[in-house]
Amino acid sequence: MIVVMRPYATREEIQRVENRLQELGFNTHPIYGEVKTVIGAIGDKSRIEPFSLSNLPGVEAIVPILKPYKLVGRELKKEPSVVDVGGGVRFGGEELVVIAGPCAIEGEEQIYQVARAVKAAGAKVLRGGAFKPRSSPYSFQGLQEEGLKLLYQVKKDLGMQVITEVVDTRDVELVSRYSDILQIGARNMQNFRLLSECGKTKKPVLLKRGLSSTIEEWLMAAEYVMTEGDSRVILCERGIRTFETATRNTMDINAIPVVKELSHLPIIADPSHGTGNWKYVNATARAFIAAGADGLIIEVHPDPEHAASDGPQSLKPEVFDELMQVLKPIAQAIGRKL
Amino acid sequence: MIVVMRPYATREEIQRVENRLQELGFNTHPIYGEVKTVIGAIGDKSRIEPFSLSNLPGVEAIVPILKPYKLVGRELKKEPSVVDVGGGVRFGGEELVVIAGPCAIEGEEQIYQVARAVKAAGAKVLRGGAFKPRSSPYSFQGLQEEGLKLLYQVKKDLGMQVITEVVDTRDVELVSRYSDILQIGARNMQNFRLLSECGKTKKPVLLKRGLSSTIEEWLMAAEYVMTEGDSRVILCERGIRTFETATRNTMDINAIPVVKELSHLPIIADPSHGTGNWKYVNATARAFIAAGADGLIIEVHPDPEHAASDGPQSLKPEVFDELMQVLKPIAQAIGRKL
Amino acid sequence: MIVVMRPYATREEIQRVENRLQELGFNTHPIYGEVKTVIGAIGDKSRIEPFSLSNLPGVEAIVPILKPYKLVGRELKKEPSVVDVGGGVRFGGEELVVIAGPCAIEGEEQIYQVARAVKAAGAKVLRGGAFKPRSSPYSFQGLQEEGLKLLYQVKKDLGMQVITEVVDTRDVELVSRYSDILQIGARNMQNFRLLSECGKTKKPVLLKRGLSSTIEEWLMAAEYVMTEGDSRVILCERGIRTFETATRNTMDINAIPVVKELSHLPIIADPSHGTGNWKYVNATARAFIAAGADGLIIEVHPDPEHAASDGPQSLKPEVFDELMQVLKPIAQAIGRKL
Amino acid sequence: MIVVMRPYATREEIQRVENRLQELGFNTHPIYGEVKTVIGAIGDKSRIEPFSLSNLPGVEAIVPILKPYKLVGRELKKEPSVVDVGGGVRFGGEELVVIAGPCAIEGEEQIYQVARAVKAAGAKVLRGGAFKPRSSPYSFQGLQEEGLKLLYQVKKDLGMQVITEVVDTRDVELVSRYSDILQIGARNMQNFRLLSECGKTKKPVLLKRGLSSTIEEWLMAAEYVMTEGDSRVILCERGIRTFETATRNTMDINAIPVVKELSHLPIIADPSHGTGNWKYVNATARAFIAAGADGLIIEVHPDPEHAASDGPQSLKPEVFDELMQVLKPIAQAIGRKL
Repeated sequence: MIVVMRPYATREEIQRVENRLQELGFNTHPIYGEVKTVIGAIGDKSRIEPFSLSNLPGVEAIVPILKPYKLVGRELKKEPSVVDVGGGVRFGGEELVVIAGPCAIEGEEQIYQVARAVKAAGAKVLRGGAFKPRSSPYSFQGLQEEGLKLLYQVKKDLGMQVITEVVDTRDVELVSRYSDILQIGARNMQNFRLLSECGKTKKPVLLKRGLSSTIEEWLMAAEYVMTEGDSRVILCERGIRTFETATRNTMDINAIPVVKELSHLPIIADPSHGTGNWKYVNATARAFIAAGADGLIIEVHPDPEHAASDGPQSLKPEVFDELMQVLKPIAQAIGRKL
Repeated sequence: MIVVMRPYATREEIQRVENRLQELGFNTHPIYGEVKTVIGAIGDKSRIEPFSLSNLPGVEAIVPILKPYKLVGRELKKEPSVVDVGGGVRFGGEELVVIAGPCAIEGEEQIYQVARAVKAAGAKVLRGGAFKPRSSPYSFQGLQEEGLKLLYQVKKDLGMQVITEVVDTRDVELVSRYSDILQIGARNMQNFRLLSECGKTKKPVLLKRGLSSTIEEWLMAAEYVMTEGDSRVILCERGIRTFETATRNTMDINAIPVVKELSHLPIIADPSHGTGNWKYVNATARAFIAAGADGLIIEVHPDPEHAASDGPQSLKPEVFDELMQVLKPIAQAIGRKL
Repeated sequence: MIVVMRPYATREEIQRVENRLQELGFNTHPIYGEVKTVIGAIGDKSRIEPFSLSNLPGVEAIVPILKPYKLVGRELKKEPSVVDVGGGVRFGGEELVVIAGPCAIEGEEQIYQVARAVKAAGAKVLRGGAFKPRSSPYSFQGLQEEGLKLLYQVKKDLGMQVITEVVDTRDVELVSRYSDILQIGARNMQNFRLLSECGKTKKPVLLKRGLSSTIEEWLMAAEYVMTEGDSRVILCERGIRTFETATRNTMDINAIPVVKELSHLPIIADPSHGTGNWKYVNATARAFIAAGADGLIIEVHPDPEHAASDGPQSLKPEVFDELMQVLKPIAQAIGRKL
Repeated sequence: MIVVMRPYATREEIQRVENRLQELGFNTHPIYGEVKTVIGAIGDKSRIEPFSLSNLPGVEAIVPILKPYKLVGRELKKEPSVVDVGGGVRFGGEELVVIAGPCAIEGEEQIYQVARAVKAAGAKVLRGGAFKPRSSPYSFQGLQEEGLKLLYQVKKDLGMQVITEVVDTRDVELVSRYSDILQIGARNMQNFRLLSECGKTKKPVLLKRGLSSTIEEWLMAAEYVMTEGDSRVILCERGIRTFETATRNTMDINAIPVVKELSHLPIIADPSHGTGNWKYVNATARAFIAAGADGLIIEVHPDPEHAASDGPQSLKPEVFDELMQVLKPIAQAIGRKL
């Protein structure tokens, strides 16, 4: 890291910072400018708190040089990771993977109907919420274990992989029994205990980006899962919160090339939550595939106007099918396939 | 609520929306404009999903009229709530309450040293983290139960109320045994299970605002706690995430008069996290008191440059004492006391 | 518009609001709910200040129903506009238009070199800054009129249309003499005098979105140009400011389908400014085309590491050529051509 | 500045960067870490484009060390500046200065009425808009020169200093003839030509912060004015744009101590625009004074519900008077006076 001293810091102040850095195990390399001195500190001391140095007299700023993450970064693992979630489905390879299904599992008929439709259209993984994090305590909270059982039954019957969200450390074991992939939602991206518990299962984890999370914080959250020995992490861009109110969130399309540069993990996109409006889903879904995302997660509902949650952003099966058709030549244009 | 129809929506579209609203138990009142028709829908159906109507043909937008929260709002309870946290300490009355202490409890000597100093300066409640949510898995995670025990011991010895953060539903019972107030941190503001579990204890809950939470979402999170029958909720503004990088967060000073208008709950401010820099703490602390906050929570550490976490934003005890002195005449100027 | 009254507003308060609305020429339609009354007000009075009503006793909120823009909206003109900028170049038709060139015109050799390269790769319009709005007064400010003359010379020699930015009302006439399209930059999106002056020239105007502008504000800025009788406006998404620092701005991919729904004007994207890093330009350029943008504006420089401005985000000509190749099948996949 | 090389950059890449830096006149000081090498570059070359180096192979990032501004910073001028605007009114001294008046000058009676009221309450400077930047072309645009004349007449009659906004380079000379202080609005904060023209007049300039401007960009805008030889710049925090919609903007209270640390210029606050709602003005006005602002600018209107613009955020004279009374003891508490 680099310690930047204030303009005209005294020799004593500079010396004191050097001493403290050496105490912490760093080698120090001061560079004296006309106005400011900076001190290069060599040594990888990820467990110390470099910012505590900013309290020393004469220190203006601390500039970290090494990335705070290790396991998720490209520095240690250069090749992209391919995450196998079972059933022959792999995220991050040449073939794109589309996850589709309803926001919430509402009943047997609904989930079978959606599952058959999205499978026919080419989706490889079925999504369906059983535990729903709702911003109002008065909203539908999901079918819970009954929902998990329905999801598992569909999986067995139709031969699809399934994914569902886990929202409480106490449910991790239960959800792991039924679901192929554990989804960690945007609101829980920095629920570090949940990240660790999911990591301990060694199951594939889909980690959504938090609404106000920087890409670096998101990668640090993935690092939490990976430090438990679970290397099967899939990232999911789902929009961030900005001042724009025309859509529910602002999808960060830049995140695709940025994450591909910084990390070896696969990344997909969720245009349903990222826009909050079904009319905008197909355009943005095409965009994320063209940008290089490894797949998509899309909400599909047979009767969106009666959906128990997220109706406005759910596609009807026929619209989802149109999307899947148009994605094929786009995937091909950039050397992928669907 | 109001359903706004698209320009030149057809009579059939309007009729279909009216029918659906009536099915859901609303009385409908259409108003026909030259370009657009709007339909007023009377009825308080908080469990239905009004936004699912936006999928009906011809609908442009849904405008809710009633606030989504009930228990936290001023509509049902007009007088400000005073939250008694035991030991004679009450938030929301004429007297302001200052909570102070270290970010993390690091050991017996450290916590006693801080506790004595902040008590002498006028703090009524001691803070100290035992379970720390850290954005890096490589950072200090807190002393956990050992920390709770130290906090409890100080409480007994010095006669102060104490507060500490709970980060996992599985720890709620444990933390409740030792702490007078349960703190829910910014990252967990929408961890709805944790909100409910804390609410079930009926203990006082300090609910920090999420980094990217609107005031309405924050009040809805408080509603989660209150629906469990726990009316002792204290809100805490601690900065939101914006594009500005000169400080760690941007403190939303406007939130004080807004929350005072919308809710009867007491609200305090956390200038330590809200600025991320001890040099800016005193100025913003003064500002929040002048704006009408019911108190403050401030990080104080005897030796910030060696702190295990949040050193840069911690005040030395003597700086905290200066702050307490200057707050007194400001409180008095607006009819409060400290 | 809808006036929402506070809970339990009195009959007198409601009456007073109705009277004031009628004074302003509205017909009023009150709807009495159990808790709140809302008053529908019919009449298009775009010159009154509806929000001034929010000062009347008992008023909680004003909800506008009609869009504030007229000329740019889909309500009056349903078919997409095709903007002809001369030389056979049309924005908004089946064929996509790519604008390319250096951030700043630095000299004759540089501009000819770039112009030949981007023309060969398929760009139809040459960009080049002569007046540069720079955040530092110490940075290169552009060649000014000399730059305009070079641009005009290249236009004549190579047979390309050209675009350059205008930053001052006093330069509008001058720039109009040399440039086929007037570019209004992000920082001037709400420089209303400049908008009007550009509109008066009746020349095509490329209007970039402001860094912190909502889509509605952006459309209102276009309305300023169009109220001068200039219907040839092209919108350009170039990224908004968010908390994310991994890229210079966050490109709002959602803006493409949103603008296409709200307005008949063509829209293009600027991935060079939107990302601030040449490595991310091709991925995001592909994305915007896939989402349905009508074209792109891209910075290309023969020697980015010696560029006088915006070097880090400029493509080398060979990278631009690769991009143009991959865009063709993507355009085709969605029924467009390049 | 510091050039950070990518992990495992080659000796050739490092050498090439050093060569380029030396070409540009820097002395280079490489520090070789285990993973990354950083190169310290000594030399103040404010006119070069350091970021163009980020295009060299092997470069990961450029970290500037010196602040980009000179004249506005504390590095060259340590003592706070006191800006004298004539008539005995000085910003930045012990005495706080309150500017008050209507958003727009609507007529002789209105402006006299407000001026008398705010003067009686203790305001030292009268504000009143003559050229209004409005987001809709259909809104009231101001009385223009007639408004300036009224303002000047009030100034002469009542003996107050006056301030009004200038929105076009072509009006700078005209406005300078009538107004004691030139106000540059938030939307024009990066209208660099306007900044320079105002600077050339050498008159006092009130520079509002842009809606999406960082503090550093704001100080760079002030630098534009000061490079013209105009040292009488007053900064004004007026809220930034965030995701929160409960208020029109989010006032950045942290900006007060931050600006006081970085710059010697006086800073005031505009709670009328910063909140957009008169009910929140007094609370936030108190807060900014308590935080250390050097004054306030407040919208006051005798009949806000009939105001031609910004009615909802305007105080009635009697509410403004209450505010002035409560500010006195707050100012005193922090060693200032009003």
